[in-house]
Amino acid sequence: MTDKLIIFDTTLRDGEQSPGASMTKDEKLRIARQLERLKVDVIEAGFAASSNGDFEAVKAIADVIQDATVCSLARANDRDIGRAAEALKGAARARIHTFIATSELHMEKKLRMTREQVLEQARLSVRFARNLCGDIEFSPEDGYRSDVDFLCRVLEAVIAEGATTINVPDTVGYAVPELYGNFIRTLRERVPNSDKAIWSVHCHNDLGMAVANSLAGVTIGGARQVECTINGLGERAGNTSLEEIVMAVKTRRDYFGLELGVDASQIVPASRMVSQTTGFVVQPNKAVVGANAFAHASGIHQDGVLKARDTYEIMRAEDVGWSANKIVLGKLSGRNAFKQRLQELGIALDSEAEVNAAFARFKDLADRKAEIFDEDILALVADESVTKEQEHYRLVSLAQSSETGERPRARVVFAAGAVEHHADSDGNGPVDASLKAIESKVGSGAELLLYSVNAITSGSTESQGEVTVRLQLGGRVVNGVGADPDIVVASAKAYLAALNKLHAAPERVAAQG
Amino acid sequence: MTDKLIIFDTTLRDGEQSPGASMTKDEKLRIARQLERLKVDVIEAGFAASSNGDFEAVKAIADVIQDATVCSLARANDRDIGRAAEALKGAARARIHTFIATSELHMEKKLRMTREQVLEQARLSVRFARNLCGDIEFSPEDGYRSDVDFLCRVLEAVIAEGATTINVPDTVGYAVPELYGNFIRTLRERVPNSDKAIWSVHCHNDLGMAVANSLAGVTIGGARQVECTINGLGERAGNTSLEEIVMAVKTRRDYFGLELGVDASQIVPASRMVSQTTGFVVQPNKAVVGANAFAHASGIHQDGVLKARDTYEIMRAEDVGWSANKIVLGKLSGRNAFKQRLQELGIALDSEAEVNAAFARFKDLADRKAEIFDEDILALVADESVTKEQEHYRLVSLAQSSETGERPRARVVFAAGAVEHHADSDGNGPVDASLKAIESKVGSGAELLLYSVNAITSGSTESQGEVTVRLQLGGRVVNGVGADPDIVVASAKAYLAALNKLHAAPERVAAQG
Repeated sequence: MTDKLIIFDTTLRDGEQSPGASMTKDEKLRIARQLERLKVDVIEAGFAASSNGDFEAVKAIADVIQDATVCSLARANDRDIGRAAEALKGAARARIHTFIATSELHMEKKLRMTREQVLEQARLSVRFARNLCGDIEFSPEDGYRSDVDFLCRVLEAVIAEGATTINVPDTVGYAVPELYGNFIRTLRERVPNSDKAIWSVHCHNDLGMAVANSLAGVTIGGARQVECTINGLGERAGNTSLEEIVMAVKTRRDYFGLELGVDASQIVPASRMVSQTTGFVVQPNKAVVGANAFAHASGIHQDGVLKARDTYEIMRAEDVGWSANKIVLGKLSGRNAFKQRLQELGIALDSEAEVNAAFARFKDLADRKAEIFDEDILALVADESVTKEQEHYRLVSLAQSSETGERPRARVVFAAGAVEHHADSDGNGPVDASLKAIESKVGSGAELLLYSVNAITSGSTESQGEVTVRLQLGGRVVNGVGADPDIVVASAKAYLAALNKLHAAPERVAAQG
Repeated sequence: MTDKLIIFDTTLRDGEQSPGASMTKDEKLRIARQLERLKVDVIEAGFAASSNGDFEAVKAIADVIQDATVCSLARANDRDIGRAAEALKGAARARIHTFIATSELHMEKKLRMTREQVLEQARLSVRFARNLCGDIEFSPEDGYRSDVDFLCRVLEAVIAEGATTINVPDTVGYAVPELYGNFIRTLRERVPNSDKAIWSVHCHNDLGMAVANSLAGVTIGGARQVECTINGLGERAGNTSLEEIVMAVKTRRDYFGLELGVDASQIVPASRMVSQTTGFVVQPNKAVVGANAFAHASGIHQDGVLKARDTYEIMRAEDVGWSANKIVLGKLSGRNAFKQRLQELGIALDSEAEVNAAFARFKDLADRKAEIFDEDILALVADESVTKEQEHYRLVSLAQSSETGERPRARVVFAAGAVEHHADSDGNGPVDASLKAIESKVGSGAELLLYSVNAITSGSTESQGEVTVRLQLGGRVVNGVGADPDIVVASAKAYLAALNKLHAAPERVAAQG
């Protein structure tokens, strides 16, 4: 058996399904480029048939990515598979990932299909897909809770039809390592043509064991592909964390004996990009990518570490891309320096007009903030792309004040399409007043589910604030992110960004968990 | 072998060692009371010899807690052990937990001691401790990376001296489940008197496998105590998460077959209290206690879940204490209703004067915020206790304003001891201006490591903002937390709270990781 472990990143598909984590095409494209720098083997770019927006995102990624295989999810039907193939047409390497549920519970309650119907649909779908693409992955949804005899029949049939990767999801995060590893081994032993496919694991973290379950699927079960996401992004408790899988396999090479193509030094930049884009914070005590994960990254010097680094450290912060924030640009930096830094960060803007717009924002920021970090540039460009793509609402100006004993007030001027609104409100605080002012004109009726702020760069009170606002309206949940050195302005931008997403984004069909 | 799994919570000791997570005595006491409601078996309350503050905290907890065993850490020397015993004098059930490093690396580089010296010191310390207390836990620090022959000799010796619990730490988070489980089993098989002690596991999450490692120590190794923390709080990537261990064992009772004393419905209240107290946010995709961990807790209704709950859910949100936020009090609520709610929340204020002070704050908040939630009350009381204990700096009033195109300005009036300062500053934003105004008078020179805001209660833009400010000065890291409906005021409070901690807290010696 090969000792190469395939890293299949599904941040842009299963990660993006997380409530509030939906991304625009530009955002997905930017993350896909970072995933390519990270050298993952497969990028699951989306679920092409779920919406026109997702189709366009998969297509844009397929057209651009050169090194990684680009994959689209598709339910086990001809329409979904056809849409996936169409979106992937421009890919250097394409994969179609089709799935259907095989557990009694899901077949009966969700699909309302019999075993034989499911088996037949799986078989026909893989046959159809194989005629469109040479690289086919099949997933039996809720596979871990499926009857093993039935599951073996399904998997044997789809391998016979040409499925090249068999992925066994623990859809609900119910597994424990020993049992999951043995389950994969049993399947591989009992399916007669199991050696014709690469086996893959896909775990969820509901009981905190996604990483260990996945690795048991590899060591005990013989799987050679792990499906995972940056920061463990995903529905409920999330998917298996890419960074933990990669660093476990690298740090314990003595035990796992596996090769990885991943460039670990791109992990922290990828983590920051995903966190900034989705507004999902990474807790400080998160393994590998949390702010405290490496003592000295948070400025702490322990006696033990000073005496000998390996007394308390098994990995080096710089190996996963932690480095001191570098001041990359300032007030006096020119357009060329800015453009070059964009290139170094892997940000490709589509036209000179876009570069000019981003540079104008950069100069505006540099007037107010002495030191510009990479994170600032990422936030600035993220801001730019959201505005460009879905610019119905746009902040024009804001004034606010608060004083102990007085009711805080805000006056917000913003554009809604061609109309400019002048809105006034009081509130419990200046943020509340600003959001109330906007809402007084928009009347969205959306419910605020989450409001959070993180300083983009640390080390100075001059940091920009990055605000995430999560809104819910009629069962849809969207995040808006806004950055500005003034936290009230950042909040207003974030609120408008979320309103833009509610204004623009279409409904999508649900994919597998 | 018994099927009871002992839950040893070390949130207040190993968790509190996390940079920035240090707590005041009152904060530790409040969390200890919540841990008792959670029905953990052992509460490690601190490290009595590390500072006078920690001694007082251990003592206060020992004097109050009735049901759980209260434990203090102590290095393997008579002074530390004596201090631990003294702090624990009032405990209904007391345990002394003594430790010394046994790995070659730690003995040579950190302790600069030979094997024989370490063995002798371990033996003598346990003998000394056993004369002071009937319940003695011994930990060989960095045990998992220790030479197994040497470790067996040490453990046999300390059991012979009367150690009743043997804890084997994976101090650096290097283990994988199979190896760690086998390591514990090997130790239990080879130490001749191993059946005289209960075996315990203590794992760190650097590779994302702390929960699986701990449970492998139980299933493969035969351990019957798990050391863990609320939210996985702890240095670097943190300790094993209590909530994940508990829910894994309960949800997979079919596999583990173990009994737990824990009342899982107290998990989410405990998680919120620890997060609010330390300012360590819980990421939305954190298992069990993250905002997204249960789909319907974040307001999402999936098709599958509506058709049959167990298609996507293996636990019920209400079983771990998630419930819709209840409006518990409002503007018209009286002092008795407030006092009763404090009791229901398990908050015991020491005197009527404290109740009065908290009630005054409550009325002030209720004037500005229509709906008061439990979280608001916790924040309010937390605020109160910090002020009471270490009240050098105190906010008097604040006025600020910002307007597009103008430089934001703030005027802050605050007390420093008996002196009242009037400070003015501009800044990049109103928060920056306010913090700069304070710093212009205090001149602490502290570096801002982290600034973050979370809305305490969701569902309305009237939420209070809870701001965490992390400062570093001369190698010390402190967190300050401040809550207010006005985010700028909350920021100033948080900054002053952090300055109070820098002003008051003494240096402490480092404990085991």
